[in-house]
Amino acid sequence: MAGNSFGKLFNLTTYGESHGTALGGVIDGCPPGIELDIEAIQNELNRRKPGQSVIVTQRKEPDTVKFHSGIFEDVTTGTPIGFVIENTNQKSHDYSHIKDSYRPSHADYTYDKKYGVRDYRGGGRSSARETACRVVAGAIAKQMLKDVQVTAYVSAVGTLKLEKPYSELDLAKAETNIVRCPDEAMASKMENYIKEVRGKGDTVGGIVSCVIKNVPVGLGEPVFDKLHAELGKAMLSINAVKGFEYGSGFHGSTMYGSDHNDAFNTDGTTKTNYSGGIQGGISNGMDIYFNVAFKPVATLIQEYETIDKEGKVVKMHGKGRHDPCVVPRAVPIVEAMAALVIADFYLLNKIYS
Amino acid sequence: MAGNSFGKLFNLTTYGESHGTALGGVIDGCPPGIELDIEAIQNELNRRKPGQSVIVTQRKEPDTVKFHSGIFEDVTTGTPIGFVIENTNQKSHDYSHIKDSYRPSHADYTYDKKYGVRDYRGGGRSSARETACRVVAGAIAKQMLKDVQVTAYVSAVGTLKLEKPYSELDLAKAETNIVRCPDEAMASKMENYIKEVRGKGDTVGGIVSCVIKNVPVGLGEPVFDKLHAELGKAMLSINAVKGFEYGSGFHGSTMYGSDHNDAFNTDGTTKTNYSGGIQGGISNGMDIYFNVAFKPVATLIQEYETIDKEGKVVKMHGKGRHDPCVVPRAVPIVEAMAALVIADFYLLNKIYS
Amino acid sequence: MAGNSFGKLFNLTTYGESHGTALGGVIDGCPPGIELDIEAIQNELNRRKPGQSVIVTQRKEPDTVKFHSGIFEDVTTGTPIGFVIENTNQKSHDYSHIKDSYRPSHADYTYDKKYGVRDYRGGGRSSARETACRVVAGAIAKQMLKDVQVTAYVSAVGTLKLEKPYSELDLAKAETNIVRCPDEAMASKMENYIKEVRGKGDTVGGIVSCVIKNVPVGLGEPVFDKLHAELGKAMLSINAVKGFEYGSGFHGSTMYGSDHNDAFNTDGTTKTNYSGGIQGGISNGMDIYFNVAFKPVATLIQEYETIDKEGKVVKMHGKGRHDPCVVPRAVPIVEAMAALVIADFYLLNKIYS
Amino acid sequence: MAGNSFGKLFNLTTYGESHGTALGGVIDGCPPGIELDIEAIQNELNRRKPGQSVIVTQRKEPDTVKFHSGIFEDVTTGTPIGFVIENTNQKSHDYSHIKDSYRPSHADYTYDKKYGVRDYRGGGRSSARETACRVVAGAIAKQMLKDVQVTAYVSAVGTLKLEKPYSELDLAKAETNIVRCPDEAMASKMENYIKEVRGKGDTVGGIVSCVIKNVPVGLGEPVFDKLHAELGKAMLSINAVKGFEYGSGFHGSTMYGSDHNDAFNTDGTTKTNYSGGIQGGISNGMDIYFNVAFKPVATLIQEYETIDKEGKVVKMHGKGRHDPCVVPRAVPIVEAMAALVIADFYLLNKIYS
Repeated sequence: MAGNSFGKLFNLTTYGESHGTALGGVIDGCPPGIELDIEAIQNELNRRKPGQSVIVTQRKEPDTVKFHSGIFEDVTTGTPIGFVIENTNQKSHDYSHIKDSYRPSHADYTYDKKYGVRDYRGGGRSSARETACRVVAGAIAKQMLKDVQVTAYVSAVGTLKLEKPYSELDLAKAETNIVRCPDEAMASKMENYIKEVRGKGDTVGGIVSCVIKNVPVGLGEPVFDKLHAELGKAMLSINAVKGFEYGSGFHGSTMYGSDHNDAFNTDGTTKTNYSGGIQGGISNGMDIYFNVAFKPVATLIQEYETIDKEGKVVKMHGKGRHDPCVVPRAVPIVEAMAALVIADFYLLNKIYS
Repeated sequence: MAGNSFGKLFNLTTYGESHGTALGGVIDGCPPGIELDIEAIQNELNRRKPGQSVIVTQRKEPDTVKFHSGIFEDVTTGTPIGFVIENTNQKSHDYSHIKDSYRPSHADYTYDKKYGVRDYRGGGRSSARETACRVVAGAIAKQMLKDVQVTAYVSAVGTLKLEKPYSELDLAKAETNIVRCPDEAMASKMENYIKEVRGKGDTVGGIVSCVIKNVPVGLGEPVFDKLHAELGKAMLSINAVKGFEYGSGFHGSTMYGSDHNDAFNTDGTTKTNYSGGIQGGISNGMDIYFNVAFKPVATLIQEYETIDKEGKVVKMHGKGRHDPCVVPRAVPIVEAMAALVIADFYLLNKIYS
Repeated sequence: MAGNSFGKLFNLTTYGESHGTALGGVIDGCPPGIELDIEAIQNELNRRKPGQSVIVTQRKEPDTVKFHSGIFEDVTTGTPIGFVIENTNQKSHDYSHIKDSYRPSHADYTYDKKYGVRDYRGGGRSSARETACRVVAGAIAKQMLKDVQVTAYVSAVGTLKLEKPYSELDLAKAETNIVRCPDEAMASKMENYIKEVRGKGDTVGGIVSCVIKNVPVGLGEPVFDKLHAELGKAMLSINAVKGFEYGSGFHGSTMYGSDHNDAFNTDGTTKTNYSGGIQGGISNGMDIYFNVAFKPVATLIQEYETIDKEGKVVKMHGKGRHDPCVVPRAVPIVEAMAALVIADFYLLNKIYS
Repeated sequence: MAGNSFGKLFNLTTYGESHGTALGGVIDGCPPGIELDIEAIQNELNRRKPGQSVIVTQRKEPDTVKFHSGIFEDVTTGTPIGFVIENTNQKSHDYSHIKDSYRPSHADYTYDKKYGVRDYRGGGRSSARETACRVVAGAIAKQMLKDVQVTAYVSAVGTLKLEKPYSELDLAKAETNIVRCPDEAMASKMENYIKEVRGKGDTVGGIVSCVIKNVPVGLGEPVFDKLHAELGKAMLSINAVKGFEYGSGFHGSTMYGSDHNDAFNTDGTTKTNYSGGIQGGISNGMDIYFNVAFKPVATLIQEYETIDKEGKVVKMHGKGRHDPCVVPRAVPIVEAMAALVIADFYLLNKIYS
């Protein structure tokens, strides 16, 4: 209820601050009998971890996950899966300068006002570091959903935008470059652009797109828990996300019904897919696809003015090792949250069998 | 769990099909001691009801709400509020022609595949008629949240888009025209456009924008139940919604951090509000604002081809009294869902007091 | 969250005060495709209704249930089932004398202190009248659980106690007498005893026992949601219940392990059943059986002293048409709650299939 | 939903098998600003741990809790509290003999049938070892509920039963002897009796009683989530519990209403307290008291016959270091679960403020 759990039947609860001793979580409801590839889980964490390339934060965190329960001889037992990721790099002195002041467009102010107390070391609970736990759980969800393919990629960095639809891209290429954009020419432009932005101590936003293939027909629980509503919530719960659209999205609002309707083929598939694989909140078996907008990271390596706890104006200078653009590292997080949503609805749908 | 409840502490459960005997719901968790203006609740329903103007469906439904419990001498008692809206206009013979076929971009196909059985009369549970119950609950939430102002309006119909930010509009004017657009010149254009589209038996999409003023600082429960994540889910759960963005939204993804950061005033307010009133998933006291994209209504008054349950191609012709553009009637629904989200987080936040 | 919903997947939400216009509820999560016998549902309500025999309250309420949704051509559709039971007998003037005073061992005082406002007409929400909605939902759960047999009966009235275990009784006989005790000689004694107690304007407690046969192996979700823990909660949530024990129960606490252990037969059944059909919180396929203790009804037809809202001592006299002993009418309520618990775990267990 | 979480607002999720690397849990919803006495938490764990006296299991486990998050400078921050208890004593070879057979009255059979796979080392998840996590969370709940006093004690071992009501006992004496019975003469008898039972390789059941003082008026959420219903569920979720009764309990079912009703004093307290501090599911400010019945431990140090996975009869001999009577070590567990229930309702009740 306090907001640190996600999912009804495939349920993840997470804990951990950016500079505490460890992050961790519990996955309750993972079905028994799933043979886990533990290395594949660690690989997902590695896709998210800091320091993996020259265009992301140069902080070094090994982000090694240890499982405490729920897995016996590499097979899930149906009991809760507890896991821990130790924080090996707790340079809290880096953050002492922000103890009494509120950084603009961070959560310092709101956390202080809500809770009356704040672990000021590097964002504490509001740090995107907590998404590491989501990636662990998402990796297990992916392994449960063998036939479903969840693939995210960077489709925009600032105003550099990939205009092609996903169906004209070779999504497998996303992992071949450090931006995680499947179009090589665009990836190269984006990489240079991010370097340029970083050089100014600035940051820039971007868009992650995601495609989910082979989703069974029938997932989603209308009227409130529509499949796309939970996907939207899942994405909007990721740090820095400002918008979500699926299928025809915002562009669809400009269209005529006569253009937008997806005519059926005789096998129940549709000739077009403006619906984005979901009708009435329930998957129809077509590809699900959506876009997630990320704002520019708020931590700049620049001087700025802000206020302290007493409301006095103070001069600050951003320090540390931050991402100039969050979207390359957000790709595995988007996939993880998508997998968690599908896993949960997959289990919920068993009630109808 | 089957998806017909919304909210944790201020909880709404709804039931009802478009052509059953009645719709209804239960609000559990409404605090005691709230003096209700029952007429104001009915007025909200009237804003949503069919037949209210020439640009919406000409179906006639009085949509009168009756309360069964939880209110004693016009004051809430803290016990669950049960209510019923009778369906007085059940022309189910209008829908007999769709019994065995699947209308494109409707939920006929997915409901049949998921549940194996379907009340085929006019959409059944997938009809937007169920949103009447949301409006009832939202009206009560609004009365609970006396100081909070929730105002939605139409900001786009098809490609006709109001480019001004909400702060430059007189939102009170939204209710002075049948489109519910606060710019009179644009409202007039939109009205003509909708009539033209209807004349062709076609439909068109649009955007509803919403502003929430006077939200207390501190609402929202990170990390998963961020305020904007629940708002997003709430909006995406409304029929025909394809996208949600708040604050700087998708445009924010093109910006630099140095432009996007909201600098503080000494009183904790911010000079700009790209954040959209929410930082780290928690309200910061600034205005919350967001956009909701609606696709064009799928029911066209045109001939079309589709398939029946056996997968055979059939010719159909759309009939009935449908909305050529859904956004004017969606305005009170967007407000209702926004009020439900704020009400829920308002109660959750009492834990910290 | 405010406590008017029960069950996770097979979920019942109820509303209604004893003297409002109607009671009602919503069953969300009932699977589609169940052919309902509506008359059988009404029959369960009739077993609970007031005025059915000389030893229960002589209040007359037809308690007719009307379904609004979720059922199409007598088959469940998988959408929420809304239902209403109108209160036809709202003699609220009977209760005006208790408006400002607190009846001993009723919920008047605690409701007033908790909510600050109270529908004082006959107990309002705290009246056992709300259990009518449980019986409706339980009757549907029973029909979903075709092979499972839930049978409750009166095993004690005051100190008159049936010492035989259920296995030596012909449970079918419980419905042949107005006490609902399957032993005819004891039933006759109990009936006379209740009449005698009523004659004095007094009341007496009792015990309802319940047996659930043919429960599949595997129901229950340890560690917190053990099958017997939810059964216990379900029973303790019924008005006037003071205790719950299953299997060997309180007597089991006096036994040696060497006597209490249930040795296996080679087919997995057990030679004895002190466990009460549940091991480690999970059903083992043996009969589940339990006892539910009910206190004497607090409303006496006698003069008594109590306090009013200002804490002044006032003289009152119990009026109205109350049950001298609640257990005969509690039998269908116990069955209903047991069926709801089993139905919920039955659906939850599908996740493992 | 899979049953490893407890509480709505003060929510505990646990994980861990008896012979895995570690147990642990997450407390989500603990309010910020509580100064924690970490040593007091460890002391509660020590009250539960194995090997603390001659009448409990001689297994040695230090049961040291480590906190990973949610606490900053010994004060709760409002973010989730993650904690871990390492298993230092994993003698899994002790259990190899039970890998393929089902011990009578254990959960081996039901876990295997439900999950299809089982961590057979010492009970796995069904071991009472998981209650260590409950004790950690309960200790924090106690510290949150400063003014509330939760005291449990042993009131029966086998047929040795303390007949005095709690009000005639000096509950502080419970912790002065290893049985945790506040009557010294009875404690001595019970101790000798347990030793005698252990000498035979047998076990015996017992009763833990609990008193909760200074509970504010108003806790509990009728109609389903009555305070005593959640207390009952909480207690029944503890390993080996067979029954729960509160206030007058099962004895109350034999009483007349005229004897059982609790007459008011002018300050709203009552002259008697058969109600057990709860009216209509809501606390009335009087002491809450209840009894919890525990069956005899199923593991005997004796030879016995049982079946293996193929249904063949096998001869086994109980080994290991088990409790001859579980109630002395159950005392802190009962207190912990009681504290969790009160803490949860305490937070829920803030909604009404």
